[in-house]
Amino acid sequence: MTCNLLTRPLAAFALAMFLCMATFAGAAADGTSSKPAAYPPNWWVGMRDARLQLMVQGPGIGASEPTLDDTPRAKIVGVARGDSPNYLFIDLRIAADATPGDLTFRFARREGLVTLRYPLLPRAPGSAQRRGFDNRDVILNLMPDRFANGDPGNDRVAGYADAADRDNPGGRHGGDLRGMRDRLDHIAGMGYTMIWPTPLIENAQSAYSYHGYAATDLYRIDPRYGSNVQYRDFVAEARTRGIGVIQDVVPNHIGDGHVWMKDPPTADWLTYAGRYDPTRHGRTALADPYAAQSDRDDFTQGWFAPTMPDLNQKQPLLATYLIQNAIWWIEYADLSGLRVDTYGYSDGAFLAEWTQRIRAEYPHFSMVGEEWSDNPSVVARWQNGWVDGKPGMPNMMDFPLSEAVRIALNEPANEYAGGLRRLYEAMVDDRLYSAPTALVAFEGNHDMPRIYSVLGENDDSFRIALVHLATIPRIPQIYYGTEVLMTSPTVRDDAATRRDFPGGWAGDRVNAFTGAGLSPRQAEAQRWLRTLLNWRKTATAVHRGRFLHYLPRDGVYVYFRDDDRQRLMVVLGRNDKAVELRLDRFAEGLKDANAARDALTGTAAPLGSSLTVPAHAALILELCTPSKPC
Amino acid sequence: MTCNLLTRPLAAFALAMFLCMATFAGAAADGTSSKPAAYPPNWWVGMRDARLQLMVQGPGIGASEPTLDDTPRAKIVGVARGDSPNYLFIDLRIAADATPGDLTFRFARREGLVTLRYPLLPRAPGSAQRRGFDNRDVILNLMPDRFANGDPGNDRVAGYADAADRDNPGGRHGGDLRGMRDRLDHIAGMGYTMIWPTPLIENAQSAYSYHGYAATDLYRIDPRYGSNVQYRDFVAEARTRGIGVIQDVVPNHIGDGHVWMKDPPTADWLTYAGRYDPTRHGRTALADPYAAQSDRDDFTQGWFAPTMPDLNQKQPLLATYLIQNAIWWIEYADLSGLRVDTYGYSDGAFLAEWTQRIRAEYPHFSMVGEEWSDNPSVVARWQNGWVDGKPGMPNMMDFPLSEAVRIALNEPANEYAGGLRRLYEAMVDDRLYSAPTALVAFEGNHDMPRIYSVLGENDDSFRIALVHLATIPRIPQIYYGTEVLMTSPTVRDDAATRRDFPGGWAGDRVNAFTGAGLSPRQAEAQRWLRTLLNWRKTATAVHRGRFLHYLPRDGVYVYFRDDDRQRLMVVLGRNDKAVELRLDRFAEGLKDANAARDALTGTAAPLGSSLTVPAHAALILELCTPSKPC
Repeated sequence: MTCNLLTRPLAAFALAMFLCMATFAGAAADGTSSKPAAYPPNWWVGMRDARLQLMVQGPGIGASEPTLDDTPRAKIVGVARGDSPNYLFIDLRIAADATPGDLTFRFARREGLVTLRYPLLPRAPGSAQRRGFDNRDVILNLMPDRFANGDPGNDRVAGYADAADRDNPGGRHGGDLRGMRDRLDHIAGMGYTMIWPTPLIENAQSAYSYHGYAATDLYRIDPRYGSNVQYRDFVAEARTRGIGVIQDVVPNHIGDGHVWMKDPPTADWLTYAGRYDPTRHGRTALADPYAAQSDRDDFTQGWFAPTMPDLNQKQPLLATYLIQNAIWWIEYADLSGLRVDTYGYSDGAFLAEWTQRIRAEYPHFSMVGEEWSDNPSVVARWQNGWVDGKPGMPNMMDFPLSEAVRIALNEPANEYAGGLRRLYEAMVDDRLYSAPTALVAFEGNHDMPRIYSVLGENDDSFRIALVHLATIPRIPQIYYGTEVLMTSPTVRDDAATRRDFPGGWAGDRVNAFTGAGLSPRQAEAQRWLRTLLNWRKTATAVHRGRFLHYLPRDGVYVYFRDDDRQRLMVVLGRNDKAVELRLDRFAEGLKDANAARDALTGTAAPLGSSLTVPAHAALILELCTPSKPC
Repeated sequence: MTCNLLTRPLAAFALAMFLCMATFAGAAADGTSSKPAAYPPNWWVGMRDARLQLMVQGPGIGASEPTLDDTPRAKIVGVARGDSPNYLFIDLRIAADATPGDLTFRFARREGLVTLRYPLLPRAPGSAQRRGFDNRDVILNLMPDRFANGDPGNDRVAGYADAADRDNPGGRHGGDLRGMRDRLDHIAGMGYTMIWPTPLIENAQSAYSYHGYAATDLYRIDPRYGSNVQYRDFVAEARTRGIGVIQDVVPNHIGDGHVWMKDPPTADWLTYAGRYDPTRHGRTALADPYAAQSDRDDFTQGWFAPTMPDLNQKQPLLATYLIQNAIWWIEYADLSGLRVDTYGYSDGAFLAEWTQRIRAEYPHFSMVGEEWSDNPSVVARWQNGWVDGKPGMPNMMDFPLSEAVRIALNEPANEYAGGLRRLYEAMVDDRLYSAPTALVAFEGNHDMPRIYSVLGENDDSFRIALVHLATIPRIPQIYYGTEVLMTSPTVRDDAATRRDFPGGWAGDRVNAFTGAGLSPRQAEAQRWLRTLLNWRKTATAVHRGRFLHYLPRDGVYVYFRDDDRQRLMVVLGRNDKAVELRLDRFAEGLKDANAARDALTGTAAPLGSSLTVPAHAALILELCTPSKPC
């Protein structure tokens, strides 16, 4: 229904946008094109915020005077110019009752009049009230270039360097939107309900373009992945399977192949006037009551890499551009969430404004920020809010807890320190967060050594880590390939952590989609994880239940989840032998439970005065009571 | 003046108390003594709180009816009895205008009338407004038994087991109050302004009585150390040298030699009805929103050791006893602070009440709690308050920062993690505390491996640690023997960490008081620390100045302290070679400074566009300006 409504104007628009991009690319270089392009390339009627600021780009456009056909639907309320002659900024106000249809701008220039038709589209029903991801979901993080190559025809695209070469560990390997789309059944079957692909946005970089964090066009899907329309269709296809899509956005920086490097709209568009000066990653400085302003500036203005110029979000025209860009993708592609890369590295006042404006349009939307700190107070600041009167980020990646798991399950431990006790003690810091259950916990991502390797390729520890992830009061996120125990060195090695998913390429000897060639351990891990995640879909106690946990003793960590429909007892153990666990200690959690069954196998587990806990336990028990027997 | 006022009644009282104690010990066993004793053994007129609850102890006293001579000075407002016949609790109200002098209680018993004269003493002038320790101070933590043996005559005391034996690492070694008093000039000369001795209270235990944390009489100095009067005189002597005394108190537990084990006033006086059940030290449970009540109870009710019964502070008679005991020692001995052992292990509501009542009597008093957690949010909860409407602990031991220093100066590091960067990043957690500058930071204490050993006996690291401790916005505390580089294994080993201070015993080959036999490194460390601490006494910028610090770069950590009288630049470095430090980055801290001098040596340090930072720097520079030249 939504698609039908939008197909016609959007398909036309997508073609227009492609042409605009071509203009974009050629205009500054040779000046031959004179067609201006507008960003965002379209907008919608019925948005909560009546304001829209267009960046119009074209050779010499800055010298023109824009007019808009007299219309009650929208009017120009301001015009701004930067330092480059090739940009013009138009502040529009769109009438609350505006009907869909093109606006026509006219630009009076020395060369003559140029017109620009600008689509105002209808919104999909319910768009503003869309729900984001939440505790019912499990998020799959995948790297599109490394997941599945569905269309070898786009492995090389004219005009783009860094063509696919699977022999180059840091090069493109050919994965694409078609590959992701073709594998949606597999993903849904595994039990994932959200997909977070690393950025699909154009990265017309000379090297390392596969990772996507060096954007060269913030409104365009990289043609090596597909088109904007293919992206939108991918999201729609995913949605039919109960899967939402989380877009990875990077307000902090772009790639040095972006036209803004050669032709910045204003002199202060990039930090340090566009010259490389690396950040020292002083991520505590922003929250630190004693930090020098220069260190705060270094964190927010320093460049991530020489090839990733840092955007200066204090520049209000750029700030508006980035805010509208995020809203555009949400509305255009029908997103379920944003994952915000290098979150704290942007200007803090900007981030507050960015968050506020997106949440104003989509009050129930989810956005998860990356703050790679193991200090909960640093992460919590972003969720709790850092500018008076403005909301914090609804979700943050839970790096402190996720790193604690990797340490805990891989260290010597005793009753008083380390191991399961570390997991227990980490939860006390939930008091620092305004909404701890809205944090996204993860077993890995594209920047970290593979968890299976970190855990010494120990299948028991692996299962403990995943059961923990799936049952704690968090939104869990899993990295692609974890399901088949993909490995890497245990120190950071991006190439190794981002290896191709087996079966994503024609001729792959091992195929994790079909199971062909998987080792028995891999096959069993995949089967087990599929069972776990599909069970979790129905586990209301995990989605919304109370969490009650007990200090680990005798090598066993026990916690309970329960809501009005379901009661669970989770038992994690690191003993080499089975132990008898006396149950009297757990009266507050067990209440009137008198029997249990294994949530994943259905096997009955007697609940007497004690429970036999197997070696290396990762048990999820559904509790039964006299009034609700097993 | 104060002493003169108090000497007569208190000296008499001290004798009476000794007899009471003897009664105490013998009464329950054979019933031959019939003299009751009261606790507290005296009180004062002019206290803010008019209430006083006496525990009267004596064979069969519980069956008696107490009366108080008709006096306008005090009246009995309530009487309570426990489960033992040998205790009676009398609630008094003391008139606001009561004059000093004895009260006379009469107890009507079957055996006849018994009288008890109860002293109400005048308070020392200014007692209520006494100041505690603060950022101007440096605290010396010492173990009296291991510091200096000033009176070999009390090495063995009749009726007390565990006589002095220096060959027994876990036995008493003979140190005492006389030894501490005799060394006050040395302590003052070193620059310490506060002494925190581990508990001097009677520990009539069969073994390990030297540490003092197993009290057998909460109103009596252990006779192996001296008497109550000697203790009070020691405090007075210290005060004449500008040194305050911090008493180490243990509301959580007692020693199993205490009469309460054999004859508890009530059946619920001890946790678990007086039976050993060890705590699992689940210290996060109290603050954890998800913890089971049974784990919270385990933490607060579990016993520290079989020989240390846990007090049940939920019992209101005991709670009052403990609160009055603390106030009694403050007033009696003229204390400058309390150090509260195993702080969080007591009942939380009790601790809030304890803190509130002491602070009500002494609004400017200092009390520092021990919460041995490396998690700032756990420590902060105690300072910030945990019961609505009741104040938190004014001071807490800063275990998180102090442990961070030990790791930081002993780990491989790079520009982005570890080492000095760890010190920098730790400060961000000051935002979690209501009063971070009131935290007590320390380089060691009686429970931790010696810092010199932890730092690999590296003199450079040692100086960095001490300069850091002396100049950060904290109250610094140093452990005895650090001044002469005392060593220990690097894993906990109490006997080794608590070795005798050299020179404290007649015939010691090495004497750190005179310098005889010290190695050149030891002598130099002692001289250097003396210089540092004496300089610190005058350093107003350290006492109250702003703290501004810079992200460590190129192996150098720089911070500034400044108030209206003094400006300091501290430079800590871990490089093996001297480096040139460009100064333009530090404009916010340097402001108009144009020269500097080394605070400890007086040597001028030119301040041009760069500063030469020596290898392994631990520099404190006093900054000079055109208006205030060097």
